Amino acid sequence: MLNTSSFKRGEPMDRIVYDLCGRDERLRFSPYCWRVHLSMAHKGLAYRTEPWRFQQKEKIAFADHDKVPVLVDGDTVVTDSFEIMRYLDQTYPDAPLLGEGQSYQRALFFKLFVERSVSPALFRIVVMDLLEAIHPDDRDYFRETREANFKMRLEELHNPTQGREQLDKVLTPVNALLKESAFLDGEAPAGADYLLFGSFMWAHVVSREALFDEHQPISRWFEKMLAIHDGMAGQAPTVREV
Amino acid sequence: MLNTSSFKRGEPMDRIVYDLCGRDERLRFSPYCWRVHLSMAHKGLAYRTEPWRFQQKEKIAFADHDKVPVLVDGDTVVTDSFEIMRYLDQTYPDAPLLGEGQSYQRALFFKLFVERSVSPALFRIVVMDLLEAIHPDDRDYFRETREANFKMRLEELHNPTQGREQLDKVLTPVNALLKESAFLDGEAPAGADYLLFGSFMWAHVVSREALFDEHQPISRWFEKMLAIHDGMAGQAPTVREV
Repeated sequence: MLNTSSFKRGEPMDRIVYDLCGRDERLRFSPYCWRVHLSMAHKGLAYRTEPWRFQQKEKIAFADHDKVPVLVDGDTVVTDSFEIMRYLDQTYPDAPLLGEGQSYQRALFFKLFVERSVSPALFRIVVMDLLEAIHPDDRDYFRETREANFKMRLEELHNPTQGREQLDKVLTPVNALLKESAFLDGEAPAGADYLLFGSFMWAHVVSREALFDEHQPISRWFEKMLAIHDGMAGQAPTVREV
Repeated sequence: MLNTSSFKRGEPMDRIVYDLCGRDERLRFSPYCWRVHLSMAHKGLAYRTEPWRFQQKEKIAFADHDKVPVLVDGDTVVTDSFEIMRYLDQTYPDAPLLGEGQSYQRALFFKLFVERSVSPALFRIVVMDLLEAIHPDDRDYFRETREANFKMRLEELHNPTQGREQLDKVLTPVNALLKESAFLDGEAPAGADYLLFGSFMWAHVVSREALFDEHQPISRWFEKMLAIHDGMAGQAPTVREV
């Protein structure tokens, strides 16, 4: 496990991550923002977060982008979680997140695997809980955009039993890898771990639904991921407390 | 594209790959052996193949292993396709196949994705054609071992329509990556490409079944993979000719 607290660089106020929040400002559940939180900790970078809601487009208009995460690092503004991870590797090259060449390319595949295969299965499990966790002012926006994407009502998408079956199949190679390795990226967590963890943290913060059998390797991995970087994710408020 | 013919090292007779053959000795369809053929070409290594059938356990007993591929490289014997790829990287470090560290670890994930998610879908499409391509003496052995693995009769597993649906879903992140990149590993093919290609070559050699929509990025990628390394795979005899 990396001990990041001992080598934090810079002043926290130099760096800001604009971070999606829910009905309570302490509820932070964006899978893309969680990638960035753990990536910042991985690099030992101090920062503060700025809470943001779906409809607060003007608040991040300076970034010429309409979604979070947005990273402000001194004079630099970076949008898109994967681009932020790439920026962090370029700017702070110790402890690579994505790496370069084949390593980067395989991380890109893994990102697409998470977004196209894992997250849709999770969405079917937690969608109604997610709607409930979102700020009331954002719910119509969330419903309209997601129903347009999926071409389906949220109530039709919602099917935790089918979602779990789908998730179980999709995770077969992940569980096989975690039988052999402590983390996806080897003995210590790195980019691939954060890419996958973001999606599970999203589900974990908004929902009490079980995501996987506790005997599966991924269950132990998730517990470890909650504990790394001084328990950064494990200490985050969820709907269980807020 | 790598031009391997200009830098082949050593004499072909120094190196042997024991290679699964079918009812006709020219039919070579093992997905694991195809990984090795392309990996050898990637490293510019000349070699010869030794045809082998499932039941010829004594022929490879010297390797203390009962399956192919087996690589004999001078005095060294290596078994298991992924171990062979690793051995090639260690022994001939130019043009990495799997790489090291995160790169290796992500290739290991990709191997498991191919074996646990992609190949089972392909199996449902081509299983009866595969049985037909196997040497008659090997068919009972093949049926018994596979039916024990799947706990199902081969005739029940066989369902090309469902197999193609399953394959299409599983390949979603692969198609997304190949929209952005010429090869899985970037501008040139490497380990991840060979790992996936082996499984498609297996299906391609034994079966006339369509595997994917010709408009999908993976279809163009497969054509390119048949052409690389002087058309090594594209020139291999299939059930269309033999």
